[in-house]
Order: sequence, then structure tokens, then C-alpha cells
Amino acid sequence: MEGVFGEAEYLACCGSHKFAKQMVESGPFSSLEQAISAATHIWFNQVDVNGWLEAFGAHPQIGQSPSNDHKSPTSAQWSKGEQSTAIATATDSTLQELYDWNTRYRQKFGFVFLICASGRSTPEILAELKRRYSNRPFVEFEIAAQEQMKITELRLDKLFSAAEKASTTKTPFS
Amino acid sequence: MEGVFGEAEYLACCGSHKFAKQMVESGPFSSLEQAISAATHIWFNQVDVNGWLEAFGAHPQIGQSPSNDHKSPTSAQWSKGEQSTAIATATDSTLQELYDWNTRYRQKFGFVFLICASGRSTPEILAELKRRYSNRPFVEFEIAAQEQMKITELRLDKLFSAAEKASTTKTPFS
Repeated sequence: MEGVFGEAEYLACCGSHKFAKQMVESGPFSSLEQAISAATHIWFNQVDVNGWLEAFGAHPQIGQSPSNDHKSPTSAQWSKGEQSTAIATATDSTLQELYDWNTRYRQKFGFVFLICASGRSTPEILAELKRRYSNRPFVEFEIAAQEQMKITELRLDKLFSAAEKASTTKTPFS
Repeated sequence: MEGVFGEAEYLACCGSHKFAKQMVESGPFSSLEQAISAATHIWFNQVDVNGWLEAFGAHPQIGQSPSNDHKSPTSAQWSKGEQSTAIATATDSTLQELYDWNTRYRQKFGFVFLICASGRSTPEILAELKRRYSNRPFVEFEIAAQEQMKITELRLDKLFSAAEKASTTKTPFS
């Protein structure tokens, strides 16, 4: 039953309801590659700009923990994992700088700074944030959507791996 | 006092509050050309994507009259004028088709179909709507922003012409 997931699971990968609905409609997928291909098509061709903003809004500010009332506990947990390198390389002063630049970024662009943080250190993230801050809002909007797609891919991978593990564990007893 | 306008006037040209505020801050302008140059810079470099959506939301659906509770009476009146060619060339069936395609467009993109309608017939607008419907949401978002900019230019022109007329009329009595 690999690749049979519901809206809640897809919503944890990407916080757009349209994305999650379309993934359920397009599935089930026989492989992770097939799911990623469908997800890429849906994200860039079917989810509208409001859906992009909705998905961006589901992320905590980078360098901060997701709030306790986060809509998707799975997403919140994954988010922590994705930021583990950043957290390990952060100091009080870089965290403060990251916070300040995040605020400036949100004031200019109207959404949270989005980056596929997996494996990236805090100084790297900070440098990227400062570089991207000078972009035009429309240009930055597309970059953020591309970063969201990278995050979605990593999360689909986690979803499929977890399902595979569960199915392997169950086999001897079925 | 040509080119000294307030937020309400700029809001009638383009329904983004950030745009209107920045225009007031950047002005007064000594010529229409200077105002258009500032407006273009503000619209594409400073107004964020939420502001673009806000401005799009200030337009009536094409082929329909602005609602009576429209936020800007000036904008509503200009909108009617811009659509006069379209209205003169419309039949009941083309209007119905326009209505149906507008609905499909809004469902796909999440905002109203925006076109600088000035001097365009209803069949022309309809053909353009059908052509643009196949675009990716992100691509269409930028096209809509470019159409908004054309509308803004025309409206700034009207604003400056009206101010010039008023000032010419007043001169003999000052």
C-alpha cells in the first residue's frame, strides 16, 4: 500500500490545501519519484498564488520553533529536524541577527523567509537571507516557491520512507 | 500645484494602499512622466505580492459594472470609461461567454481577469482571456501586474489632466 496517503499527510509536506487535495486525487503513487513528479506539476501549474502564500504561511520563521498550536504536528516536527544543522551552528548573536533580518524580510515581501534549511548552517542561511533581500518581490516570490518545492520533496521522501518501514515491519505478521 | 495628490487619488489609480502611500511620499511630481516613472518603480520593486492581489481585487469583473459600494467612486467611474468600447461591441451571448470565462479564470488563478480594456472590443478581450487562461498561475500573475501598470498609467494621465484643467480654469480668478 506504499504511496496511499490522505490530505493531512500531504498537507504536512506542503501547507496548501489545493496541493493536498490534488495529490490525493492524482494518487496513489507507485513510487516516490512518481509522487514528486505529480507534486511538482501540481505546485507549479495548478496551485494559484494564494495557495503559494498559504503554504509559505504554514512555516515557522527560520531560527524559531514552530508554535505549539501549529496546524500540522508532523510538519512542525519535520521543520525542527530540517533546522537541526542551523540550530547546532547558531550563537546568540547570529540568532538575533537572523531574527532581525527575518523581520525586515517579512516587512518587504509580506511572507516568511523560506529556505530549504536541511544541512545548512546559520551563517549560510543568514548570508542567503541578506542576498535575497535585495530581490524584487515578484522574483523573490518564485525563489520562495522553488524552496518550498525542495522542502516538499524532502518531506515526501520522509513520508514514503516511514510508510515503507511500517509496511516492512508488518509483513511477518500479515 | 500640478502633481500634488493624496492617497485617495493614487488609490483610484491603483488599489494597493502601499502603492498609494509610497506615491504620496515620492511626490509631488513636476510632470506626468515623472509620476509614471515613480509609479512603475514602486509597483514593481516595492509593492509586495499581497499588494498586487489587493490592487487586482479593487477591479470589477470585466464586462460587469463596479458594485455600488465600490471603495473608490473615481476608480469605479474610470473603470466604466475604460470598458466603453467593450460595452459598445458586446452582445448578450458574448457577455454571457465573458462571464463564464471570467468565472473559470478566477477559479484557476484566484483573482479577477485583468486587462487594460481601453479601446478593446469584447471579442478581443474574450480571445485574450481564453489565450491567457492556459498560462501557469505564476506567469499569469506577472501579466496581470503588467496590465495593472498600464491601467495605472492611463489613470495617472487622467488625474494630471483633470488637475491641469482645474488649475487653468482657476487662473483668471486668482
